[in-house]
Amino acid sequence: MKPLNRVIVLLQFLLITLSVSAQGLSWTEVAPGVWKAVAGKPEAYNLLTAADVTPNKTALARLEKAPFPLLREEIKVRFQDGKTYLRLPLDRTEQLYGFGLNFQTVHQRGKILQLHVDHYGKSDNGRTHAPVPFYVSSKGYGVLINSARYLDIYAGSAVRKDSKNPPELKDRNTDKTWSARPYSDAVEVLIPAAGLEFYVFAGPSPLDAVRRFNLFNGGGTLPPRWGLGFTQRVHRLYTAEQVLGEAREFEEKGYPLDFIGLEPGWQSKSYPCTFEWDKGRFPEPERFVRELLSKGVRINLWTNPYVSPEASIYPEIAPFTASHTVWVGAVPDLSMPRAREVLFSKFEQDHVRIGVSGYKIDEVDGYDSYLWPDVATFPSGHSAEQMRQTYGLLVQKHTFDLFRKNNTRTYGLVRASNAGGSSFPYVIYNDNYSHEDFITALINSGYSGVLWTPEVRASKTGEEWLRRMQTVCFSPMAMINAWSSGTRPWSFPEVAEQVKQMAQLRMQMMPYWYTEFAKYHYQGTPPFRSMNLEAGFGQEARKEKNSASLEENPYEEAVTREVKDQYMAGEYLLVAPLFTGQSTRKVILPKGRWYDFYTGTFVGNGEVISVTADLDKIPVFVKDGGIIPLMAPRLHAPKAGERVDMEIRHYGQKNGKYLLYDDDGETFDYEKGRYSWREIKVERQPDGQWKGTLAVAEPGKPNSVGTVSWRFMTQ
Amino acid sequence: MKPLNRVIVLLQFLLITLSVSAQGLSWTEVAPGVWKAVAGKPEAYNLLTAADVTPNKTALARLEKAPFPLLREEIKVRFQDGKTYLRLPLDRTEQLYGFGLNFQTVHQRGKILQLHVDHYGKSDNGRTHAPVPFYVSSKGYGVLINSARYLDIYAGSAVRKDSKNPPELKDRNTDKTWSARPYSDAVEVLIPAAGLEFYVFAGPSPLDAVRRFNLFNGGGTLPPRWGLGFTQRVHRLYTAEQVLGEAREFEEKGYPLDFIGLEPGWQSKSYPCTFEWDKGRFPEPERFVRELLSKGVRINLWTNPYVSPEASIYPEIAPFTASHTVWVGAVPDLSMPRAREVLFSKFEQDHVRIGVSGYKIDEVDGYDSYLWPDVATFPSGHSAEQMRQTYGLLVQKHTFDLFRKNNTRTYGLVRASNAGGSSFPYVIYNDNYSHEDFITALINSGYSGVLWTPEVRASKTGEEWLRRMQTVCFSPMAMINAWSSGTRPWSFPEVAEQVKQMAQLRMQMMPYWYTEFAKYHYQGTPPFRSMNLEAGFGQEARKEKNSASLEENPYEEAVTREVKDQYMAGEYLLVAPLFTGQSTRKVILPKGRWYDFYTGTFVGNGEVISVTADLDKIPVFVKDGGIIPLMAPRLHAPKAGERVDMEIRHYGQKNGKYLLYDDDGETFDYEKGRYSWREIKVERQPDGQWKGTLAVAEPGKPNSVGTVSWRFMTQ
Repeated sequence: MKPLNRVIVLLQFLLITLSVSAQGLSWTEVAPGVWKAVAGKPEAYNLLTAADVTPNKTALARLEKAPFPLLREEIKVRFQDGKTYLRLPLDRTEQLYGFGLNFQTVHQRGKILQLHVDHYGKSDNGRTHAPVPFYVSSKGYGVLINSARYLDIYAGSAVRKDSKNPPELKDRNTDKTWSARPYSDAVEVLIPAAGLEFYVFAGPSPLDAVRRFNLFNGGGTLPPRWGLGFTQRVHRLYTAEQVLGEAREFEEKGYPLDFIGLEPGWQSKSYPCTFEWDKGRFPEPERFVRELLSKGVRINLWTNPYVSPEASIYPEIAPFTASHTVWVGAVPDLSMPRAREVLFSKFEQDHVRIGVSGYKIDEVDGYDSYLWPDVATFPSGHSAEQMRQTYGLLVQKHTFDLFRKNNTRTYGLVRASNAGGSSFPYVIYNDNYSHEDFITALINSGYSGVLWTPEVRASKTGEEWLRRMQTVCFSPMAMINAWSSGTRPWSFPEVAEQVKQMAQLRMQMMPYWYTEFAKYHYQGTPPFRSMNLEAGFGQEARKEKNSASLEENPYEEAVTREVKDQYMAGEYLLVAPLFTGQSTRKVILPKGRWYDFYTGTFVGNGEVISVTADLDKIPVFVKDGGIIPLMAPRLHAPKAGERVDMEIRHYGQKNGKYLLYDDDGETFDYEKGRYSWREIKVERQPDGQWKGTLAVAEPGKPNSVGTVSWRFMTQ
Repeated sequence: MKPLNRVIVLLQFLLITLSVSAQGLSWTEVAPGVWKAVAGKPEAYNLLTAADVTPNKTALARLEKAPFPLLREEIKVRFQDGKTYLRLPLDRTEQLYGFGLNFQTVHQRGKILQLHVDHYGKSDNGRTHAPVPFYVSSKGYGVLINSARYLDIYAGSAVRKDSKNPPELKDRNTDKTWSARPYSDAVEVLIPAAGLEFYVFAGPSPLDAVRRFNLFNGGGTLPPRWGLGFTQRVHRLYTAEQVLGEAREFEEKGYPLDFIGLEPGWQSKSYPCTFEWDKGRFPEPERFVRELLSKGVRINLWTNPYVSPEASIYPEIAPFTASHTVWVGAVPDLSMPRAREVLFSKFEQDHVRIGVSGYKIDEVDGYDSYLWPDVATFPSGHSAEQMRQTYGLLVQKHTFDLFRKNNTRTYGLVRASNAGGSSFPYVIYNDNYSHEDFITALINSGYSGVLWTPEVRASKTGEEWLRRMQTVCFSPMAMINAWSSGTRPWSFPEVAEQVKQMAQLRMQMMPYWYTEFAKYHYQGTPPFRSMNLEAGFGQEARKEKNSASLEENPYEEAVTREVKDQYMAGEYLLVAPLFTGQSTRKVILPKGRWYDFYTGTFVGNGEVISVTADLDKIPVFVKDGGIIPLMAPRLHAPKAGERVDMEIRHYGQKNGKYLLYDDDGETFDYEKGRYSWREIKVERQPDGQWKGTLAVAEPGKPNSVGTVSWRFMTQ
């Protein structure tokens, strides 16, 4: 043996030793159908410790029992280059979903992502507002990698030399079936840490895996009823008088309004912030807030967490802030109790105490150009990377706590989240304004335990204005954000009436939305979600030749065509929005009979239909046997204890059953059992007539239902 | 003190201790005007060890002596989160250039980059073919971070709380001068390693810093003369007969041709490769190569380094390949001598031995979608990241060595490089096809010790074809790449004659190009470079409001307008290309008098001029006193020892001086002193006439000059 070869053999031996010395995985079933695996020395600070929520084990236990969904021996961990490598198997037909709030793609198999909290930058590369390291397989299981690091994900894209299930070797010179992306049999992840903690969630269905994930994170959020009403964010420099005037105008014109968002101008200084009311624009903040509350309108305050050196709290918080600034403002190390105490007691004193109902927390996602850099240090010793991955969770958790302490629910906006955030009452938004991307994000939000609003800001035409209003009314938050434009619902006179009807429909549907959110909370089922989570929806992503020209497409890459413009809203509704310029579109109906939401007529069964909708309608379809409880249109959400009359609609040929959720709609008393699920039944009678029944309210339980009328939509 | 506060103080103390315990920097002047700094434990494998070249200390010593260009105490190093942090100061007016082969920007101050070898993806974010971690300051110094890791660069974008030179605090509510990107006083870098080696290069001018960088890397490459001729890459599935036919056609039609590139079809299998000639298309490779050589046409072979399991070398190389494959091909660990031996002795046997003159080495940059993933392991123990950052260097170095062993120069193409590669005879290319980006890349190549060709492939119109031909003829490699399109220079009959003239001009200018490359080699001066390296060019980047609408531009970000469409070619020429659709453009002339290349007429002095050019002309301007040696048009580069007649042109009012370089043009004998610099002088005589002289050839030195004629262009 030559000396050189000897060295090589030695090196190889060393490498093999290092691989073999990788600690095995230790597995624990931490909740029914949820397994935790640990390898090496995982970091103490991770997504779940930042979110710090308690799994809902009772609800998890109620789910169907399920075996471990993978072959444990096919899950590999290895330590290399100071990092941890994780591999999970994939079979040939499996599809993957999730990996956070993606905006352009639903099917994730084959993707390469670096999960990294960031403003979405027009491509699904892992940089997004909620880069949740959780994926769901079409085979009915989920995997969460609980790390607050930037994770490199190869979601079935890389091919190992030692693969037992390798792709076929092809010669590109002559073989027309040669592919630039050969089949890969694994998800591979690089975790830049000396150890790893991850979780496997059983199904049996993909939706069950999502449910287990959400319940493990404490269950989905249950907003206050008013959170599901309409909200207007006013121009950034409005004064108290202007805000009150705007609220009056909503009332006079008959547009629903549950809360108003104030943008930066409420603060004495912004970017960075003082968190203090501007004395000129808002001379009497408490009186202002109370006056609006008396009219049934709540106040939500915009802020970012970056502390102006001129803020009163600056001297006290300065020692607990990062080495680097954001717009010359200090960055509180919110992983430190003292930083939280200083910042959030200011919030409590100046805002929550006087009746403010929630926050919009901006810029915690960070465009790199202004956020703290990855070279920054934080006094807790957590790295800039770890802080970036968790900052959205931290602001949500600790502002939520301010309201929880008062036994008052809140519902707000945030621009970053991550795994563990399912139960936080926040909806994600961003600066992007592509209507199509907004809908794809809404679809993907359901895979990641986050909520998303396709907010309406401005529009070029009345048509666009109305189309955007339609989708925002079928989303977790029905909002106009007029911070820059000053738009109002009636800004386009030619569609002002249709916008009003849309907003009224949103209000009418509140009992349905509220019940669907209750299911998110108690059962983990996302209220807005992908068609791929719906049984009977067989639509696969199709690969299509991108371009026949090697000039334009040197690797002959195929492009994936997938369904990313229709979604499920609650148990029964399929929403298929129209975008500006469209009056007709294709809708893919899962197997089972589907009915038009507005007329109750049959539209199809497991087929692709073409729908034409007038400008004033968003195409919505109801599953056979679907029950939709509506209340009378109104301008504000019902108050705690208030009773409202209800119209219960039934669609289709099947008998229907629905559990209507109820509680006070404002407090956390539901956590003490003060809630009810009342059964609604619609059954065909021997005489062929439909008959509906609503179970009587349990004595002592909340009951917000007044008189009930029935409407059998399908004749 | 509360217990909590005590913990916090303790934590802070710990953090401070960790920072203080950072080892100081140890400085050495490793070559005249080049200082090396070491901190912590730098990794043994880095860019310079991969490139493994010897600094040209003699040439460095000839440069003006210069003091250390920064204040050492303002350079900070710190260890954090298992990584090394480096900070270098910036003053208010300083501009930064470099950071690798960028395609859309020249001014780099304010940028955030992650340097990462990759195919350029339409934005300058650090992912590029040559993400050289070297920057040049307008203040006249350069910095190289010698690490084979992905480096996070904040090039004057982040603001520290403790900055001694902080930006002004502003209130965005009311202050219209508020900026989303406040002033930053430092370059900050995160190196994911436990130590760091970096270099500071003195000026005094920015160009001097670049020269020192190139000389430190062994000096720029000196191509063979034929490398500067015209090259055609033929259709990927051409047979030997078709290639010979194409060469004949060039000859018959009178188009210059020095080398032909064969694309994948010469191999028996490709993507992955066998490195073996296809017996059907090339039955007698040696005879084929020799036949072309006899006609003055050399052969360059396309390949990528990924080894087909059906390649004859597969069994032998397999143990020395990565864990993951590329298109099911094995990835040789080229940092291991044994892998190189197996792969390159195949190259030597099957290609170099029979007369092949060079390679085009594809796909070593890697689109993530096909390259080995970052989770891959290599038998040497080097990480996938390190291999990715250096693979381009390794393939260049070790293929170069095959030719050097034979005392024959080569000149080829490669798709990745990095710091340390200045002396490798390779030109970078890519799959992008934006003519504008190509020119910006040409400008930036000069900051990074790499060469770039704006190759011509196909075109929609004759105009585009000609405009592209014009710029490729004023670049390091005049090439048509017809691998997919099958285009030839005469493909657009309406401009076939103009294309021929352009290619002939390229040939005529060979003495100038060759001399300018010699300066690259001996003096470090890049032959193609930015206007910002030219004395008297005062053009700064301008910041302009992007959009007045907060809807479209929520952070009121300004956009940088900069000059990125004109460049210097050699000592005297300013090239200002026209793009399709343009017939007129603005050109910024540095201070000093400038003359039209074609007519010799004065065009301006330190001003912005508007030029109009016919379709058959690319605007080129000559500095006052400029001397351009031309040879008679010919179809192939002069052979070693051959003499060619020369026309020496002089431009402007000043006397001119030029050192004409000469050697055999084919071998490395110049390294043994077999070269000459002959002085050309043009002086105005007392009678007002110009007179030119060429120093006589030193006896025994190479001399390729036949008879000389003089042309004084400016009357």
